[in-house]
Amino acid sequence: MADWNPALYRRFESERTRPAIELLARVPLAEAPYAVDLGCGPGNSTELLAARYAQAEIVGVDSSEAMLASARERLPGLRFELADIATWRPARPPALIFANAVLQWLPDHATLLPRLFDSLAPGGVLALQMPDNLDEPSHRAMRELAAQPPWSAWLPHAAALREKPLAAAAYYDLLAPRAAAVDVWHTVYRHPMASPEAIVDWLRSTGLRVFVDPLPEPEREGYLRAYRARIADAYPARADGQRLLDFPRLFVVARRPAP
Amino acid sequence: MADWNPALYRRFESERTRPAIELLARVPLAEAPYAVDLGCGPGNSTELLAARYAQAEIVGVDSSEAMLASARERLPGLRFELADIATWRPARPPALIFANAVLQWLPDHATLLPRLFDSLAPGGVLALQMPDNLDEPSHRAMRELAAQPPWSAWLPHAAALREKPLAAAAYYDLLAPRAAAVDVWHTVYRHPMASPEAIVDWLRSTGLRVFVDPLPEPEREGYLRAYRARIADAYPARADGQRLLDFPRLFVVARRPAP
Repeated sequence: MADWNPALYRRFESERTRPAIELLARVPLAEAPYAVDLGCGPGNSTELLAARYAQAEIVGVDSSEAMLASARERLPGLRFELADIATWRPARPPALIFANAVLQWLPDHATLLPRLFDSLAPGGVLALQMPDNLDEPSHRAMRELAAQPPWSAWLPHAAALREKPLAAAAYYDLLAPRAAAVDVWHTVYRHPMASPEAIVDWLRSTGLRVFVDPLPEPEREGYLRAYRARIADAYPARADGQRLLDFPRLFVVARRPAP
Repeated sequence: MADWNPALYRRFESERTRPAIELLARVPLAEAPYAVDLGCGPGNSTELLAARYAQAEIVGVDSSEAMLASARERLPGLRFELADIATWRPARPPALIFANAVLQWLPDHATLLPRLFDSLAPGGVLALQMPDNLDEPSHRAMRELAAQPPWSAWLPHAAALREKPLAAAAYYDLLAPRAAAVDVWHTVYRHPMASPEAIVDWLRSTGLRVFVDPLPEPEREGYLRAYRARIADAYPARADGQRLLDFPRLFVVARRPAP
């Protein structure tokens, strides 16, 4: 599959950064000597960490070279490292692991989250946010079209590439017995979008990649045309002509007991 | 019905103030010369407005004398006024109308919200937040018990006293054609609560009032006993013994076009 496209990803940066702002607002740390931005992407979330924790040593970690190049250009003073998050371990215990819109790409949260949490320094915080939109019309349409010929021939496993998050209470149960406090919430944003094409462009840079990238032309074009028609139906024009893209996201902030 | 109980209401003040903080964080105004806190309660939200807009003239409005007395004690420098919000109109156009956890008690949002919005100064902002929990187990249990004898004799209309909010898109449609921007979102908080009794206490100070206050003793005690049992079942203990109180809230921030 092609690498991520930072330019397309950044087109909706304001909408994508908002959950990171809201996640960081709930991190109960006045200082964070060593903070890791896991899945830093093009550095928009890393920039928030650097603004709040000006004294911190901050490291951005991502599995995409293209995203890291974009992040380094944006924040030349910070350190960015290539790593597979599934096996990544911090060099020393961080005060903060910040994982904005990344862990949905990783399997087995029941093992991964306690491992990340236990790698924190005492009193440290794991703060994560994930899209929880696999049951939205936008994502059901991706899967339904991928199950139809001719596209099904190229997309036998596309729907399995992303994990559906656990229930909110399951994340609480995973972390609360080892935590001083766990805060779990969902927010459903409703992003006003100018057109069905704008919605497709948004998704083209993330969730739609695994469905569209494996297709050869002209099947790719056909898939996108059919997908656009589904989106136009599922997200009708509102009173002012805009379409509201419902976007549920799950947030978890868990703090280790102080020493 | 008895007046509101500010002391009981304040017991969960941190949880109740969080949505007000998050609502205010989304108000896109650097300054607000004249701001109204509609349904100010004991002044916790008014205090947030005063902290962000130190130069503003701020007025708190509420229909409860007990709540206003509590607010005046807390913020002696601010003005607090008794009014029925259904008919309240500002003396002059405010830059900000902030309505945290109050409009769910008022009918006919299709008329009320455009009226409040049109009373703003050009460029002004209407920011509101409402519990959207009438379909939660906590509130279904209130209604189901109220429909059973012996309690049904005293509670023929209790379930009708609070409006269910409109759909998120309906609020968008009401305001977007007259607005420069409308932002609508839901957040579902999950409050860790120490016991079923703690959940009942929380609700006793708000949603449960209209069901419990009209009952004479000993029916009141019987209703509360049956309600506590329902809550204990509906909110099981999690891995650390806490109960998670799911609490959905609807947020709307709409801005009038600048002059």
